[in-house]
Amino acid sequence: MERKMQAYIDRLNRLDFGGMYESDFFLTWEKSDDELEAVFTVADALRCLRENNISARIFDSGLGISIFRDNSTRTRFSFASACNLLGLEVQDLDEGKSQIAHGETVRETANMISFMADVIGIRDDMYIGKGNKYMHDVADAVAEGHRQGVLEQRPTLVNLQCDIDHPTQCMADMLHIIHSFGGAEKLKGKKVAMTWAYSPSYGKPLSVPQGVIGLMTRFGMEVVLAHPEGYEVMPETEAVARANAEKSGGSFRRTNSMADAFRNADVVYPKSWAPFAAMEKRSRLYSEGDTDGIRALEKELLAQNAEHKDWCCTEELMKTTRAGSALYLHCLPADISGVSCADGEVEASVFDRYRTPLYKEASFKPYIIAAMIFLARVRDPQTALKTLEERGAARFLLK
Amino acid sequence: MERKMQAYIDRLNRLDFGGMYESDFFLTWEKSDDELEAVFTVADALRCLRENNISARIFDSGLGISIFRDNSTRTRFSFASACNLLGLEVQDLDEGKSQIAHGETVRETANMISFMADVIGIRDDMYIGKGNKYMHDVADAVAEGHRQGVLEQRPTLVNLQCDIDHPTQCMADMLHIIHSFGGAEKLKGKKVAMTWAYSPSYGKPLSVPQGVIGLMTRFGMEVVLAHPEGYEVMPETEAVARANAEKSGGSFRRTNSMADAFRNADVVYPKSWAPFAAMEKRSRLYSEGDTDGIRALEKELLAQNAEHKDWCCTEELMKTTRAGSALYLHCLPADISGVSCADGEVEASVFDRYRTPLYKEASFKPYIIAAMIFLARVRDPQTALKTLEERGAARFLLK
Amino acid sequence: MERKMQAYIDRLNRLDFGGMYESDFFLTWEKSDDELEAVFTVADALRCLRENNISARIFDSGLGISIFRDNSTRTRFSFASACNLLGLEVQDLDEGKSQIAHGETVRETANMISFMADVIGIRDDMYIGKGNKYMHDVADAVAEGHRQGVLEQRPTLVNLQCDIDHPTQCMADMLHIIHSFGGAEKLKGKKVAMTWAYSPSYGKPLSVPQGVIGLMTRFGMEVVLAHPEGYEVMPETEAVARANAEKSGGSFRRTNSMADAFRNADVVYPKSWAPFAAMEKRSRLYSEGDTDGIRALEKELLAQNAEHKDWCCTEELMKTTRAGSALYLHCLPADISGVSCADGEVEASVFDRYRTPLYKEASFKPYIIAAMIFLARVRDPQTALKTLEERGAARFLLK
Repeated sequence: MERKMQAYIDRLNRLDFGGMYESDFFLTWEKSDDELEAVFTVADALRCLRENNISARIFDSGLGISIFRDNSTRTRFSFASACNLLGLEVQDLDEGKSQIAHGETVRETANMISFMADVIGIRDDMYIGKGNKYMHDVADAVAEGHRQGVLEQRPTLVNLQCDIDHPTQCMADMLHIIHSFGGAEKLKGKKVAMTWAYSPSYGKPLSVPQGVIGLMTRFGMEVVLAHPEGYEVMPETEAVARANAEKSGGSFRRTNSMADAFRNADVVYPKSWAPFAAMEKRSRLYSEGDTDGIRALEKELLAQNAEHKDWCCTEELMKTTRAGSALYLHCLPADISGVSCADGEVEASVFDRYRTPLYKEASFKPYIIAAMIFLARVRDPQTALKTLEERGAARFLLK
Repeated sequence: MERKMQAYIDRLNRLDFGGMYESDFFLTWEKSDDELEAVFTVADALRCLRENNISARIFDSGLGISIFRDNSTRTRFSFASACNLLGLEVQDLDEGKSQIAHGETVRETANMISFMADVIGIRDDMYIGKGNKYMHDVADAVAEGHRQGVLEQRPTLVNLQCDIDHPTQCMADMLHIIHSFGGAEKLKGKKVAMTWAYSPSYGKPLSVPQGVIGLMTRFGMEVVLAHPEGYEVMPETEAVARANAEKSGGSFRRTNSMADAFRNADVVYPKSWAPFAAMEKRSRLYSEGDTDGIRALEKELLAQNAEHKDWCCTEELMKTTRAGSALYLHCLPADISGVSCADGEVEASVFDRYRTPLYKEASFKPYIIAAMIFLARVRDPQTALKTLEERGAARFLLK
Repeated sequence: MERKMQAYIDRLNRLDFGGMYESDFFLTWEKSDDELEAVFTVADALRCLRENNISARIFDSGLGISIFRDNSTRTRFSFASACNLLGLEVQDLDEGKSQIAHGETVRETANMISFMADVIGIRDDMYIGKGNKYMHDVADAVAEGHRQGVLEQRPTLVNLQCDIDHPTQCMADMLHIIHSFGGAEKLKGKKVAMTWAYSPSYGKPLSVPQGVIGLMTRFGMEVVLAHPEGYEVMPETEAVARANAEKSGGSFRRTNSMADAFRNADVVYPKSWAPFAAMEKRSRLYSEGDTDGIRALEKELLAQNAEHKDWCCTEELMKTTRAGSALYLHCLPADISGVSCADGEVEASVFDRYRTPLYKEASFKPYIIAAMIFLARVRDPQTALKTLEERGAARFLLK
């Protein structure tokens, strides 16, 4: 273990990530390559400590605040696990699902709940143009509160899914890819198919496909975004993907053919999402309180959706991937044909074969979140990791 | 205290309970006599530590997951207390009251919430044939996840009440009896009356009477199960009770007379429950979505119930017990005549006289749960207890 | 820091607060001046420790139980922060909003949730004559449970707002005043205006004005209670205020003019509340289940309320205070004209100017609560603080 920990520390020593200290994590593309590598490295290091029964508690007391403006089980438990790993107690702010009405309330509430908070994790992905903005409002409020001496510490904000990106999910997906292929340096030229897939529920968030193309284009990979016509994602995130690909020596392109995307792919990520334009329209209808309009839109979307039942990750399609054995990814839960629904995103036999890797993919999320907190709160992460290792406090004292 | 702790350790040294390590706790009759005695002994030892202000924290971090598929206050706080005592932070999975639809979801959810879980406590007692099965599904899922390397540790499952047994309650009841009579070795030949009693609410779970006859028949006691005709419990649990009694040199019999059961009893446990056959029918009606059928059944059960208002633990009946002073037990809350309802399970003056012992009975539950976790997670409990005692870390540092 | 901590300890050495050990905190006027000064001093000392990154954990494990019989965000997080600071894990008893039916249940539930509880915090402010009584019932129940050997420790009860007083709020307000004016000894002769102000929501609790006049009259200040006719507070609390003022050499008077109260005031606290007589009537109607009566009363109160929109903390009024710069207080959230409502308690520009001081005012609450717990649970607080300082355990280990 000592050798592994030293390797993580050596890698951190080569990276420039000073900007993360006392900052927040909103979108992966607001972070430098070095900063993202620092997150992956610290995530691996924290996991290494825990697997060797060494406590990673850096807080003796302190709160981790969670605000879930949408139901959540997986992300909720990942956040709770990350906070607990570092020594923070989770307190959930249950504000109902109503949008908070005006800025005054956000500013005030953010400070009132944060007197002893070291991190605030927020999930707010329902309305286009709202979630990310809300997170910034909260982060600005507590940063100002810290400057004014109201808060003794500056809580870091971690985006647990917004309308634009889902950084903790995509970073976990990415770390899973890195481990599966034996290192980030092995990824050049690998083909990734981020493709739409049919699900009977039609309004799933866009943050996963947007986050994936915004992140995976940074590793020199050939990223293909596939979807039926009309299922475009937020144009800004495509622009990010194109720019990333150019810089990293990879590529980014869009296709309306799932078969095209799967052909010789090394990684496939077939997943349902709602059309961006429709989500924009829905957000507008909601803010106008137009219930009839919303109902009409939903009907239209369901009809549109039903035309694309053939967008399914089948055994046949999987055979066309590299050596017939691409790495299959999903953020879970997946809609599995014949299991959770008649027609879904993936055939049952494909899903079954990948179950264990899929669960492992998910297992990186608590560590990614913990690493984001760690890098934002700890001034000198290398020394901190060394100290934790040398302290050697047992996580489970009587194993 | 040192002498007491050494006595607990000595007793553990005489017992064979190796099978509990890395296992789960579903039903008491799936455990050997030695294993049950180990639970009682560790519960007493943990209580001894706390009463002497010595920390029993064996976890520096880690989660205890609770899933309550029925409302609960007492068991919820007992589980939270047990987790906290050992150093685990409770996270509740609030899944609503709907039955989870298919096995895929259970398997997946169980893993997704368990990345840093050391224990999962479940209460699921509403539907015959479901609760215990669901617990096994969850336990199998996380055991498999651990084998596959998805979970770094294997969370132990603790049954916080299912359709068959309520082991944490019955073990707490039993430890209360053991302490009240001065040791398990004093119980041979003592008469226990587990009897039905009238309550205006007619659908109470069967797990307590079933658990009591399945457990208390193991100590050489004369166990009598009394209820009006038509209030039979699950036949399998009666078979367990009969077999236990034969093995332990005690007896088990059924009667339809409360007076018969109380006569010369050393312990009485008068409590309402629903007829097993009716509960089976109700589970079937629910799964068929037959609302009219359910309503008709409820009406019928209430009418049947009202015929037995004379099944009450009165002062008169108490006088017929051994020396007029049998130990009165109840899992609480009791329906008290003239207090919580017009006619109930027990007369107010009887309940009043036994209030403090009843509360003490309940006070064993957190320690029983903690002992179950301890024995499932700690490889060498004797050394562990010795280490905790010698470490002598204060529970309350500045008492 | 050492000098500061020694000063706090020296001050405690001069005070007589032995009666707080193993007691509860219901109303400020049930405590002696020395006891209140001890709370302020320990609050400052705990804050000093945390600001110097020294852990104030006095519990290695243990629960802090919260019971909120009314929605709450601020107080909830303040209580959670206080518990966490001292090492207790919060468990919330969510009992719904129904009044618990009979005393048996309160007595029993209080014990059942407290086996490992060191503090119980309760907010119950909705019904006149109920909240404070309920807290006493709970406190009596656990004290009795402790005496009978059911509970190993005696949990302390902290009033998080009742129908009579809101001690954690008012003590936080008061500590803010003390710090703003440079010490309690500087407060003699200062004028405090506790005044009613208009808000579109008409049924706000009386505990804040009642708590303020019951507390601030103890420091030799000139306390003026201002409200429109018909908005009288509970007469007993006015009697307390008058007696306090006489004893402390200050004064207490009532006026129906906001301008009168503001003139030359050093501190202003403009805030809406409901008329006591109306609240009494509402409590009676609720207990009678008279829904029509409640609706009629609400209508009447809203109409009465709307006649007093001119009771607003305006810039103009603020100019009439001492040097035009009285300290503006509010328990938050305030109703701000043109921000959260058309006409509210305060003009937006006034609120804006005082935002940071208002947030600081609120920041004292977690420390006040922690100090109340500390003084009730720790036998020798001076030695305890010294020990914490000398132990010097880091709150955040790798800052």
